[in-house]
This record gives sequence, structure tokens and C-alpha cells, in this order.
Amino acid sequence: MAGTDNKQELLAEGPSIILVEPQLGENIGMAARAMANFGLIDLRIVNPRDGWPSEKANSAASGAVYVLEQATIYPTLREAMEGLSYVVATTARMRDGFKQVLGPEEASRNLRARFAKDQKVGILFGRERIGLRNEEVSLADDIVTFPVNPAYASLNIAQAVLLMSYEFLKTKNVEADNLPFAGTNFEEAPKEQLFGLFNQLEDALDARGYFRTAEKKPVLTENLRAVLTRAGFSQDEIQVLRGVVSSLDRFSRNMPRGAGSPDDDAHRKAQKEAAKNG
Amino acid sequence: MAGTDNKQELLAEGPSIILVEPQLGENIGMAARAMANFGLIDLRIVNPRDGWPSEKANSAASGAVYVLEQATIYPTLREAMEGLSYVVATTARMRDGFKQVLGPEEASRNLRARFAKDQKVGILFGRERIGLRNEEVSLADDIVTFPVNPAYASLNIAQAVLLMSYEFLKTKNVEADNLPFAGTNFEEAPKEQLFGLFNQLEDALDARGYFRTAEKKPVLTENLRAVLTRAGFSQDEIQVLRGVVSSLDRFSRNMPRGAGSPDDDAHRKAQKEAAKNG
Repeated sequence: MAGTDNKQELLAEGPSIILVEPQLGENIGMAARAMANFGLIDLRIVNPRDGWPSEKANSAASGAVYVLEQATIYPTLREAMEGLSYVVATTARMRDGFKQVLGPEEASRNLRARFAKDQKVGILFGRERIGLRNEEVSLADDIVTFPVNPAYASLNIAQAVLLMSYEFLKTKNVEADNLPFAGTNFEEAPKEQLFGLFNQLEDALDARGYFRTAEKKPVLTENLRAVLTRAGFSQDEIQVLRGVVSSLDRFSRNMPRGAGSPDDDAHRKAQKEAAKNG
Repeated sequence: MAGTDNKQELLAEGPSIILVEPQLGENIGMAARAMANFGLIDLRIVNPRDGWPSEKANSAASGAVYVLEQATIYPTLREAMEGLSYVVATTARMRDGFKQVLGPEEASRNLRARFAKDQKVGILFGRERIGLRNEEVSLADDIVTFPVNPAYASLNIAQAVLLMSYEFLKTKNVEADNLPFAGTNFEEAPKEQLFGLFNQLEDALDARGYFRTAEKKPVLTENLRAVLTRAGFSQDEIQVLRGVVSSLDRFSRNMPRGAGSPDDDAHRKAQKEAAKNG
């Protein structure tokens, strides 16, 4: 199927592809090749099992080694999501929780609409064997799943990357790109800011025994994160929310004004610090 | 990405996938796996380079060995196309000739519309290294090509099979399937009947020096086949055409009626024989 035209400009755009703890170098290489075929360029890898760089990835990538050479490696998913404002998680299994489930076409339209407004977007892909963990899915804005044969569903990660990259390219030149003017560019905050809110809030709740038992904590945490993620808060909104949490956390009810009490300045200071500490 | 539900009925339908002289067993196995993921079942292989059955194909197929076990092997593409009435050829390169070029979505809609009317349809995929030959493409009704990064286009055959299988599944439950009644089921003749017409006509033309030089013959032949294929003749129409060719071929102009001349009975007899000899 080779049809490369070297005189053409290389397409290098679109969502970041984030592979979470991929096990096999071959799959990373095939994913890079799929990305290149459909013009994607930014590959982020969380904690590849067999280390990095990978000889096997390079050899499976065929001519797409340029994608691997620019790939970035992260110790955690949260760090890999830095700078992104809208992220979808691919999964083949139904998950509990408050997330929309989209098909690849609709997800690609969402990604394209944001990308067309210069927002940074991404797609998460899980490990070969077990996919994404619930706590990882909970960090994404929406879930994507593929229409498949229900009695035989075994897409590997490179195939899933291929389908999403293909659908994203297909949405090029959609209607919204061609309108003469645009409305407010409502953009979700970069993920690290949302995660900062999570940290602050979860810490504050934990200190109060909100999570009850250690068993219940993961589910309660995921639900909380899902709700906050679904809201799609902007940077300004998160700033406001952090101030609220900070206020609730640091100051107790009915403290009298004055004498070290939460006056307005103290509130503002607390908000600023909270935002800085991420 | 595993999400198989063994309690669900296995989807096993759709177009035949025809791999023309595939070189690597791994690719055949991956193609079978892609088919299974999206509910396709009929795999036809023309002259696999490394023989059949293939251990490498089986191991790459993962749980989709059932597709390989039912696969059929043919010495020529023409034989592999027997029984099919509408066939598209995938290619990454522009081809000369009188063929429509479709994207995978539109091609899948065409395949689905015919499939919904119980017609047999198929998709051709070429060799890893050089794809389909022009003479092979000329046997198909339409061409399919994939939207790709123009500066890096290197889909392998398993990926191409994956995309077509995926697009075919996506067209399930389209509008046309749900209409309360249908118009005439206009069906192209099974390919072997069209090939019979090719044989008859090309032989008749060759005997008359139509193809001029040996160099020009392939191009002239392909153009002729392209024109006849594009027309989408039904069984009845081909019968008529064969009668016409037969008549032109066997009888010379201005022969007087009577005395061994082409009376109506002789014509009818010639037509029948021509049809029988395929």
C-alpha cells in the first residue's frame, strides 16, 4: 500500500497520543507508524515496560522513526497529560462513573473542534494486557470505545491508535474550520490545574475522614474526579474553586473576624498559595 | 483493548476479503484478526507466497484462527472472484483508466447496500511490496483509496483490511436496511460471467489484430475490461452481449441468407454455446 510522495509537505499535527505503560516495543513502533500515516506527530509514553529508546519500536516503525525520535517519556500519566485541556480515554470495557461514551467518529469531531481553536488535546491508550485502570480513565474528559464484533473484540493498541488517527484525519476541513468568525473560545484548563484541584480537595477531604475506609476510597475518589472533569472547568473557574476549597479547608466555621480570623486578605493569600502548590 | 463477550453471538457476515499473493503469514494472520474484530468471515487468498496453511498466520491471528480455518486458497484472482457481483480494489497509487475512486466510507456504503440485498461482494488487497497490478485492478468495479498523510503513506495490508472491515461494520443499520419495501434488486452478474465475456471478446479481437503490438496489448486490454466492468452488467445483459460478440465473431458481413448463412436459429445457437464455454 506504499504511496508516499516525498515532495509533499509532511502532515504533523493533531492530538497527542498517550500510551500508558505499553509492554511491547513492536506495538509502540506500529502505533508510531499508524500516527505518521494519518499525520499525527506527538507521542507521549508513560513508563514503557522494556525501557526507552527501544530497538524493537524503531524497527516496527518503518519510516516513522521520526515520530519515535520526538516521543517524550513520563513516569506518571498525570505528568504526560500536562498542557492538555481535553483528553479522551479509549477502552473496550464498560466503566462505572460519570463519563460520556463516544464512538471514534464523534470523539474525533470533538478533538478536531478543539484542535481547530488551538487547544491541546490528547487520546489515552492502555496496556496490552489490561488496558487502562479506572483511576486513569477517571482523569479523561470522555470515553471512546470502538464498534466491534461483540463476540470477538481484540483490538491491539496499535490498531486502536490507527483507527483514532484515521478518524481524526477524516475530520479535516469540517464545517467549524470554515466559518468566517468564531464565538468565545471556551477552553478547559490545562490538566495539571485540574489535578491541582484534585490534590487540594482530596487532601482536605481525607483529613476529615470523607473517604471512610481504605476500600471505599478509590471509588469515591474516582467519582469525585469524574464529576469535576465532566464539568470542563476553565482556568478561571478552577482558580475560583481552589479558593473555595482553601477557604473551607483552612478556616473553621464561626471563627470571629479579627484575631487571626479569615479576613478577605487571608482568603486571597490562601487561594494564591493553593494555586501555586498545584 | 480486550472486551470479548463470549455469550454474544459471533458476527460473521459482510464482504469477502481477497488477499492477492500476500507475502507474509503474519500479515494474513493480522488481517484475519482485523476481520474478526469487525465481524467479517470470508477470507480468500490468491497464491500465498509461503504456502498454506501457515503457522505464522495462525500465531498472529490470536483468537481469530476460525477465520483462517475457513479461508479458501485460489491459484488466480479470477477464480477467487467467482460468485461475487461487486468488488472494490484497494490501492494507494493513482491508476489510469475508467474507474471511480472512492473513500473507505463511501465504498463501505456501496458494499453494505448490495450486501443488504443478499448480493455477494468483495474487497481486493494487493501484495505487501507492490500492491495490486493494473490488470488486477481492472477486474474490480471501483477503486478504494485511504485518506492519508501524503508525505508518509505506508499502510500495510492488515491495516488496510482493518480500516475497511471497521468502516463496513459502521454502516450496519443504515437507512436503506430499514425501509419497509425495496425497488428492483439490480445485481451485477457473477464475475465469472463477466470474465467469460472478456475471454470471448478479447479472443475475437486478437484474431483480428485489434491489439496491434504486443506492447500495446496490456493497456488496450485493461481499458476494454475497465469499460465493461464499470457498466455493471447483469446476467441477462451479459447474455445479450455475448450473443452480439458471438454473432460478430462467427459470421461475416454481407453473407447471403440461406446457404449456411447466419439465420436467426444459428445466431441463437452461437449465443448459447458462447455462454456455455465461459
